Amino acid sequence: MNNPQLNKHGELQHLLTTEGLPVRIMRDILDKASTFLDGEQGDIRKVPLLQGKSVFNVFFENSTRTRTTFEIAAKKLSADVVNLNIGQSSTSKGETLLDTVDNLCAMHADMFVVRHSTSGAAHLIAQHVAPEIHVINAGDGRHAHPTQALLDMYTIRHYKKEFHNLRVAIVGDVLHSRVARSQIHALTTLGVPEVRVVAPKTLLPSHVEKLGVQVYHDMEQGLEDVDVVMMLRLQNERMQGALLPSAQEYFKYYGLTQERLAVAKSDAIVMHPGPMNRGVEIDSSVADGSHSVILPQVTFGIAVRMAVMSILAGAK
Amino acid sequence: MNNPQLNKHGELQHLLTTEGLPVRIMRDILDKASTFLDGEQGDIRKVPLLQGKSVFNVFFENSTRTRTTFEIAAKKLSADVVNLNIGQSSTSKGETLLDTVDNLCAMHADMFVVRHSTSGAAHLIAQHVAPEIHVINAGDGRHAHPTQALLDMYTIRHYKKEFHNLRVAIVGDVLHSRVARSQIHALTTLGVPEVRVVAPKTLLPSHVEKLGVQVYHDMEQGLEDVDVVMMLRLQNERMQGALLPSAQEYFKYYGLTQERLAVAKSDAIVMHPGPMNRGVEIDSSVADGSHSVILPQVTFGIAVRMAVMSILAGAK
Amino acid sequence: MNNPQLNKHGELQHLLTTEGLPVRIMRDILDKASTFLDGEQGDIRKVPLLQGKSVFNVFFENSTRTRTTFEIAAKKLSADVVNLNIGQSSTSKGETLLDTVDNLCAMHADMFVVRHSTSGAAHLIAQHVAPEIHVINAGDGRHAHPTQALLDMYTIRHYKKEFHNLRVAIVGDVLHSRVARSQIHALTTLGVPEVRVVAPKTLLPSHVEKLGVQVYHDMEQGLEDVDVVMMLRLQNERMQGALLPSAQEYFKYYGLTQERLAVAKSDAIVMHPGPMNRGVEIDSSVADGSHSVILPQVTFGIAVRMAVMSILAGAK
Repeated sequence: MNNPQLNKHGELQHLLTTEGLPVRIMRDILDKASTFLDGEQGDIRKVPLLQGKSVFNVFFENSTRTRTTFEIAAKKLSADVVNLNIGQSSTSKGETLLDTVDNLCAMHADMFVVRHSTSGAAHLIAQHVAPEIHVINAGDGRHAHPTQALLDMYTIRHYKKEFHNLRVAIVGDVLHSRVARSQIHALTTLGVPEVRVVAPKTLLPSHVEKLGVQVYHDMEQGLEDVDVVMMLRLQNERMQGALLPSAQEYFKYYGLTQERLAVAKSDAIVMHPGPMNRGVEIDSSVADGSHSVILPQVTFGIAVRMAVMSILAGAK
Repeated sequence: MNNPQLNKHGELQHLLTTEGLPVRIMRDILDKASTFLDGEQGDIRKVPLLQGKSVFNVFFENSTRTRTTFEIAAKKLSADVVNLNIGQSSTSKGETLLDTVDNLCAMHADMFVVRHSTSGAAHLIAQHVAPEIHVINAGDGRHAHPTQALLDMYTIRHYKKEFHNLRVAIVGDVLHSRVARSQIHALTTLGVPEVRVVAPKTLLPSHVEKLGVQVYHDMEQGLEDVDVVMMLRLQNERMQGALLPSAQEYFKYYGLTQERLAVAKSDAIVMHPGPMNRGVEIDSSVADGSHSVILPQVTFGIAVRMAVMSILAGAK
Repeated sequence: MNNPQLNKHGELQHLLTTEGLPVRIMRDILDKASTFLDGEQGDIRKVPLLQGKSVFNVFFENSTRTRTTFEIAAKKLSADVVNLNIGQSSTSKGETLLDTVDNLCAMHADMFVVRHSTSGAAHLIAQHVAPEIHVINAGDGRHAHPTQALLDMYTIRHYKKEFHNLRVAIVGDVLHSRVARSQIHALTTLGVPEVRVVAPKTLLPSHVEKLGVQVYHDMEQGLEDVDVVMMLRLQNERMQGALLPSAQEYFKYYGLTQERLAVAKSDAIVMHPGPMNRGVEIDSSVADGSHSVILPQVTFGIAVRMAVMSILAGAK
């Protein structure tokens, strides 16, 4: 078995995708994350686990929010953090991606957090770097966003304790969503018996059922008796044009309202990766309501990223 | 009394404005600031008062200079600093201001330094955040810029020792200046008996005298026998158009020259919040002259921001 | 002798240019740099030499790569680093360069790393700052880029041990290159007996031979029997227009290919300051070939910048 994320000892060498990520490693990450969260408020302690190490946030695609979560996680581990918005610089000077990466490696970074608009970019970089450098995929094209999926799994486990007895619905633009892909792989790996996707046909990949999910085009049916509702963000550029008539139309059929949520289990939780489009994919009364765990997701996200970084730093 | 800046123990919980800020808290800040300045050069010592704490510079409006002063102050206190230029990111993705703030709170920042082009933004955020998070207003619209006013008070006390015997003139575009508003409230709170504003009618708010100031439209009269001259920056966008004929015309009537300064007291000090427009609101010979304390203001500004942060961090 | 880079004790006060930099100081920098590199991999250790000090990266001209190398070097020395992209802020508000510098000095930085598009900017700033502040030139116009030249010298010494027996060729757009100027001064100071420049007449400064170099217009002749080939980057804006017909034409006559490199010594090394234009000034087979030391240059660059900073911080 040649898993590009594992080293020869079977340890996590890079975190690129939840697809094929062994269940024992997923559980290790979730367990480790919980050690960084203190008390009821979920305070995050500063620890010296990455003291003297350098983490480079290499963002070929701009994202202040995601970059910030990794920056905080690294600083809470006492690492030195260097932020690079590469979109604005070297590559526009005609340098190739791999030359840029080679240069950053030669600066002796210990860890790269990579975001790129092209699917597969993080894999390409991971294959290319020196063996002592670890790569974390912070989102590549439509492919994967594994730390988002792992923080979602942490959130589910926090509220539901177990995975083996859950019914989970992922709602929205699955077609363009790296988050959805990573969630589906994580949920099935962790043993969730029923994963549903709920979306109009134009926003579903062809043959999506081959990923092990059940397909629904109707919200009332798709949400019936689910334990977890995972909403997806509707990208602004999808809100008009060929795939969707308008944001208003979308909300009418696929927006999560309290009425629609009523068909889910009475203790169902509602998640969203942010940033939310209130009134498009989710109604404000749900976003701010008692079922919403959207803000705890963010807190858990810091702890999960700390866990990933500290596990990578511990690989031999 | 419901002061949004104080907690129930009467301690400083947020620093939003100098309006209504108790005199004992202003004096605490000035006293604390002096402990961070060493020797004649005004060296600033690094201390561990905010070790393990995270300070987020949340700038909805870009300002490298102001962001830098807060960043240095936080780092001199050994805090971890995360810079966010929000103008470029989430809000442009359609997220609301309060959703952005909620997300940053969920990342467990200890302190937000907020700059926003809308008056009242810092208050809104302060009302919204969890009780363990402290907000510092780094400038909101035309409303307030309290750390600038407090560093100005520190500068005045440094050179003049007392406030109760001073005559102070604020000169320039009071109408559009959050700095002027914060200065006026601070000066009157600290007991300055005579605060003057000197400006053309078009650059004064209506009923400005209700703030407890005397109004002058003539520089020679306005500067007569004053101890302190506080110049305001003339924003580029004011230099032409409806309110002012031109920058040259403005300098002719309201530019601070050595000639005009001669009517002030012989030991008067000249201040400016920066960045200066030389030859517009101030002549170079004054900016660089013996009365100018413009650069000490900057140094004191670091110490005052350290004082504010350390006092906030100590609130229970 | 009034060398603006030295203090009255003859110690390095600022690093502005390699021109006139005493050979003993160059050798000190190279010796010091080697102490930061560990083992065969060239690992860079974190040391507390600049603990409590503030390094400001003051970039009037944007360069993510160069800024990053200085940021890493400073953090590896345990300094606090503040990044300022001044191009985007104060100067565009009408403030003069020296007012900006005065303000940054008043914030009590210990060291400025300055990049500016105008030749002489770093000198001007160095003359202006308070005596306890050190200035490092990170590139000023077409004038100088001393840390690049010093890391090149480190690289040459690493592979060739001595300077006094070398034949070195600098190839490309010498006319517009601050790197080439700084390399030539460093090479001649360190005693390299034969320095060649190889370029079309349109890309050479007039009277370049007065710098102590031999001029070649033909690659085969210019590279014959050399020990070191130092390639220059061809700026995109030169690739078409008055000075050059096209990038393709340039590669045909001045691109470094394996064929052309064959006339150099069999153990010649090939250097490039990056970012490379593959297929314009250098062929990929050479860039990635056994003679290339382009990536070690980057690693040595971190150590050399650490050496410069720690020597400056030690000046009395």
